Amino acid sequence: MLVVKKFGGTSVADKERIMNVAARCIKDYREGNDVVVVLSAMGKQTDVLIDMAKDINPMPSKRELDMLLTTGEQISVALMAMAMGGMGVPAISLNAFQVAMHTTSSYGNARLKRIDIDRIRHELDQRKIVIITGFQGINKYTDYTTLGRGGSDTTAVALAAALHADSCEIYTDVDGVYTADPRIVKKARKLKEITYEEMLDLATLGAGVLHNRSVELAKKYGVRLIVRSSLTEAEGTIVKEDTKVERMIVSGVAADKNVTRISLIGLKNVPGIAFKVFDVLAKANINVDMILQSIGRHDTKDITFTIPEDSRDEALSVLEAKKEQLGYEDISENSDVAKVSIVGAGMMSNPGVAAKMFEALYNCDININMISTSEIRVTVLIDEKEVDKAMNAIHDMFGLED
Amino acid sequence: MLVVKKFGGTSVADKERIMNVAARCIKDYREGNDVVVVLSAMGKQTDVLIDMAKDINPMPSKRELDMLLTTGEQISVALMAMAMGGMGVPAISLNAFQVAMHTTSSYGNARLKRIDIDRIRHELDQRKIVIITGFQGINKYTDYTTLGRGGSDTTAVALAAALHADSCEIYTDVDGVYTADPRIVKKARKLKEITYEEMLDLATLGAGVLHNRSVELAKKYGVRLIVRSSLTEAEGTIVKEDTKVERMIVSGVAADKNVTRISLIGLKNVPGIAFKVFDVLAKANINVDMILQSIGRHDTKDITFTIPEDSRDEALSVLEAKKEQLGYEDISENSDVAKVSIVGAGMMSNPGVAAKMFEALYNCDININMISTSEIRVTVLIDEKEVDKAMNAIHDMFGLED
Repeated sequence: MLVVKKFGGTSVADKERIMNVAARCIKDYREGNDVVVVLSAMGKQTDVLIDMAKDINPMPSKRELDMLLTTGEQISVALMAMAMGGMGVPAISLNAFQVAMHTTSSYGNARLKRIDIDRIRHELDQRKIVIITGFQGINKYTDYTTLGRGGSDTTAVALAAALHADSCEIYTDVDGVYTADPRIVKKARKLKEITYEEMLDLATLGAGVLHNRSVELAKKYGVRLIVRSSLTEAEGTIVKEDTKVERMIVSGVAADKNVTRISLIGLKNVPGIAFKVFDVLAKANINVDMILQSIGRHDTKDITFTIPEDSRDEALSVLEAKKEQLGYEDISENSDVAKVSIVGAGMMSNPGVAAKMFEALYNCDININMISTSEIRVTVLIDEKEVDKAMNAIHDMFGLED
Repeated sequence: MLVVKKFGGTSVADKERIMNVAARCIKDYREGNDVVVVLSAMGKQTDVLIDMAKDINPMPSKRELDMLLTTGEQISVALMAMAMGGMGVPAISLNAFQVAMHTTSSYGNARLKRIDIDRIRHELDQRKIVIITGFQGINKYTDYTTLGRGGSDTTAVALAAALHADSCEIYTDVDGVYTADPRIVKKARKLKEITYEEMLDLATLGAGVLHNRSVELAKKYGVRLIVRSSLTEAEGTIVKEDTKVERMIVSGVAADKNVTRISLIGLKNVPGIAFKVFDVLAKANINVDMILQSIGRHDTKDITFTIPEDSRDEALSVLEAKKEQLGYEDISENSDVAKVSIVGAGMMSNPGVAAKMFEALYNCDININMISTSEIRVTVLIDEKEVDKAMNAIHDMFGLED
């Protein structure tokens, strides 16, 4: 068996945890498996580095920021190899250059294009545990890039796909995927299995367990994903093909507070104006999520949309810079909003699910700002302070604790 | 003018100093020069990383240790590029992979073999300041290596040679090369110029300003070296060809406390025994300096030699492992010894210099353990606690304060 195991920053935050992870990987290795380990930077190291950078230059070049941040994972993997070496197991660390892990050019938010597996295979063939830096890649200029939020998950899944691994285990500080965040919804229940599609929607919607890109990749290449706890031996949740999972109407409730709503008011009512707005945002690499277009006064249009709160400043700055070209009258924004979503593969064959969700919100007097739906998901935008109440109400309404 | 400027860890230890170095480099850049900057890791970062490693594994693999340590310079160069960017000057950081900086395979103590200059030239042609990680390289396995003590000086000189730079400025916390360590010898005087050979002997003997490998390289490729202070605008010391420097009989006194003396007692008096001893040490990458061979009792030989104190444990361990093969009776060692040397290009044409040095030591009752000489150098091994007294006495004897 070839298994890829990914551990996040919390799991390698100090010596003791590094030793734990090493021991855990060695157990698999000693059972005769080929083990590839993907690590994030230790604890809050990435934040520490970002703070150092911003102290020196509040708007550092993205290229140099990636050059700085990639040291974080390199430290983790080198220390992990030393820990395993100390336990008598041959281990070798590799960074994005050494693998090599090719990405698109864009710094801070690159996408994996291709992974060379020769070096990894070579080291595995010598019965070494191979420890690889997550989150990072190199672009065509042989510069470092980083993969953005949740990048280490993506690295792990991409490696599992490239190496045709038997499974890809994502270790987190929770022991699986729940019907809702257990810190908010006390009755939340752990799922044994979930489909890629459901997981994808949960990930996109801020369940926080797995990043959506990694789930997309897993789905595309049929990688068997397992979400497990790095602290306990609990079984975790298996993410796999639709057909193999019993369909629940609603399998989970997720919330995402990292949201800003922006409205452009008084746009000219001419064709192509929406394209122009979203093109400006796309070129600045800003992900737009929910979109609402409405007719304003005097035959004008209003366009309202949500973006990650992280991108708020940049979005406002690029939109204001293009004010004349886009021709809007006013701009407004609100960051005290959050998305709450229900996800379920069985939703498509069960009408009335959305109505039931709205009813739950109505029952506890929560106002809905925007609505967006897909085949297996319903998302509403509400006031941020109402999130906990909304999640509990919805969880109860669908009886997810059973 | 193309100038390579090297700054050590102290010069980039915090934000303020990074800003100072950035401003200093930008001054040269704005005068129209092409500027290449070589940096060490910030402050005590390398030691911090080594401590982290040893905490996890007291005997970490050298390969993984280099993987860990190379993050130190990468952080420095990225932050420096950001600092310069913030000052409105285009700057780019490059690590050993990106340059690429090819070395021999041996981890922890590699030697530079070849530097690709295409990327650097390309960035300079776009009028960028190019900031390069010192101390590190890559070997034929595309693994990181480090160059050992003083490695960043070597990187700077090698880059200056490869790029045919007009000069290579080494910035330190002293403002030049002195006739002796000014902390020990109050009357020490700064030299305006010094030959490569003198500098080489001073470096080898622990003057601590420049590493000997960097001086060797500078001599080999005729790189014009300037030792300057990173704190003041003082002129510094120029290191250059013999012919252009006024020859002083003795140009400096240096001391090195990083010394252990080892004696192998009762070796068989047969040919090849010295070779066997030093071959064992060479294979363990241990530099042997002074050597004394004497006839022992019962037609046996004793061999006494000095090594860097850092290598003491390893030397004792390899020698003890080969005890039977080497056939010695006993081994003894002393680390409370130090080397004191005088250096001067004019020495070869002035007999009696060594005698004058011994006289100075005799006058203040210092016992000499071992003596070694070259054309332009005399070195004695004495008790470590006598070093300050010895240096002052010698400095006075040769009238170096004038």
